[in-house]
Amino acid sequence: MHAGSGRLPTLALHRWRKIVTVANRWDRVALIGIGLLGGSIGLALRRRGLARQVVGVGRDGQRLAQAVQAGVITEAAADLTAAVAHADVVVVATPVDRIEPMVRQVVAAADSAQIITDVGSVKAPIVDGLADLPDEAPFVGSHPLAGSERSGFEYADADLLEGRVVFVTPTDATPPRVTEQAGRFWEALGARVERMAAREHDRVMAAVSHLPHVVAAALAASVPTFPQHYFGSGFRDTTRLAAGSVEMWVPILLQNQSAVLESLRHFRDSIEDWERALAAADPRQLADLLAKGKQRRDALGS
Amino acid sequence: MHAGSGRLPTLALHRWRKIVTVANRWDRVALIGIGLLGGSIGLALRRRGLARQVVGVGRDGQRLAQAVQAGVITEAAADLTAAVAHADVVVVATPVDRIEPMVRQVVAAADSAQIITDVGSVKAPIVDGLADLPDEAPFVGSHPLAGSERSGFEYADADLLEGRVVFVTPTDATPPRVTEQAGRFWEALGARVERMAAREHDRVMAAVSHLPHVVAAALAASVPTFPQHYFGSGFRDTTRLAAGSVEMWVPILLQNQSAVLESLRHFRDSIEDWERALAAADPRQLADLLAKGKQRRDALGS
Repeated sequence: MHAGSGRLPTLALHRWRKIVTVANRWDRVALIGIGLLGGSIGLALRRRGLARQVVGVGRDGQRLAQAVQAGVITEAAADLTAAVAHADVVVVATPVDRIEPMVRQVVAAADSAQIITDVGSVKAPIVDGLADLPDEAPFVGSHPLAGSERSGFEYADADLLEGRVVFVTPTDATPPRVTEQAGRFWEALGARVERMAAREHDRVMAAVSHLPHVVAAALAASVPTFPQHYFGSGFRDTTRLAAGSVEMWVPILLQNQSAVLESLRHFRDSIEDWERALAAADPRQLADLLAKGKQRRDALGS
Repeated sequence: MHAGSGRLPTLALHRWRKIVTVANRWDRVALIGIGLLGGSIGLALRRRGLARQVVGVGRDGQRLAQAVQAGVITEAAADLTAAVAHADVVVVATPVDRIEPMVRQVVAAADSAQIITDVGSVKAPIVDGLADLPDEAPFVGSHPLAGSERSGFEYADADLLEGRVVFVTPTDATPPRVTEQAGRFWEALGARVERMAAREHDRVMAAVSHLPHVVAAALAASVPTFPQHYFGSGFRDTTRLAAGSVEMWVPILLQNQSAVLESLRHFRDSIEDWERALAAADPRQLADLLAKGKQRRDALGS
């Protein structure tokens, strides 16, 4: 319409914005914390044309400016209230021990948000802690099962969530609409969504993620310091997780303390079985233990 | 010479063979056992033009015929004596508990070998067991620090040894010429050779290879059976070694029993430190343990 017109009249501009918004799905997404995960979400939103504005909020203005330059977010904000005020979606991607107070602030400030969620890898302390939010607050907990031993938006990957599971952990009080929309948000980023109760989620994570981290760190620290080239790909794979961020992992382990401790005790039982079989030099016991591990590992594929 | 001649006279043919032999470096290499490692050595010898004949010896004639078809060896032999009689190099690549008696047979039958070696990942029981070989026997123990959780020549890789360490473990009785020539053999395959006493080698391997295998198996077996997609790349990396061959690993662990047991006890101490720190929910202890693991792992590179 108005072909040949030198400028778009106000009404047409307004319409055009609406069309773009629909194509973009979300007009404004606010990401609180621009690390590997926050950065990857920003990059994925932009590459997939899912959001018109991706505003990043963080404490370090210089890092945020770099994230804008890197194309991970479209704008940086130091002020949380201003950043989330008109956001349709807010994702809190800070270290896990800072999520609960941050969500509280976001709920108070985000007046038009359809979804407020987080990416914390421990869910019960957050979800239980936020049980007193107003009924209509559009918060639901999430946890994308994706990451890396590396940290920082420099390692952000637009396909990080592609094919990965994102756990979404509603409570009885969560508005069903919010749970659904959060699911659609993660699916739009390529993920597969699975709903799970927060406490059950934390038990699963203790076993499949937090225990392996502890085991990798314990193994890396327990062997003598040999020349680097004595360590082959087997040792490197088995200890890879130990390279993860200390600052990130202390709160994860503390927040999921009882479940991690339980997993670690099971693991120690398993190590003691191995000690007995080795001390007895019993080929049959050793074969049984190896076969049990192989069967479980083979079932996972590569 | 003899340009235009329809056939090469016997003398010229003889000379030509010698030239080819020099270009090939070794005229005939015998590989006893064609698994991942034996197969990769065969493939590397052929691709690099290092040997004219690569004869494979094994108990399963059908498997050997497949290895010839796959181009991993040039001929198959069921009879050990015939296979090694005129070999310049013999590499014993059987499971570790069958190496010592096999080397004995090879030493008796290989009348023109310059090098007889093996690839066993435990060295002291083999090297000590063979201490009564004749002084002039051209045997020296080797262990290429290369492998995979996969087994079988189907996974053979001509570059498997490229850049990897091969430990060569001479004793005071090993002819220096044999140690040197074995070193050159592995270097020709792209490896970096390191001489080490057999017992020291076994202590190193207990820590960097055998312990991680046990830890991976224990971890894979200790966690509940969740749906496959709950297990992310961290768990998969940490447990990858557990997929290794049970048949191969029982004898490795038995032959290196005391060193593996010692490593495992150190590791268990490390796990108990973790249990105490978690039970105390002490952020400082947890940070120290994480930092120790991270520092050690970071020092290895990716």
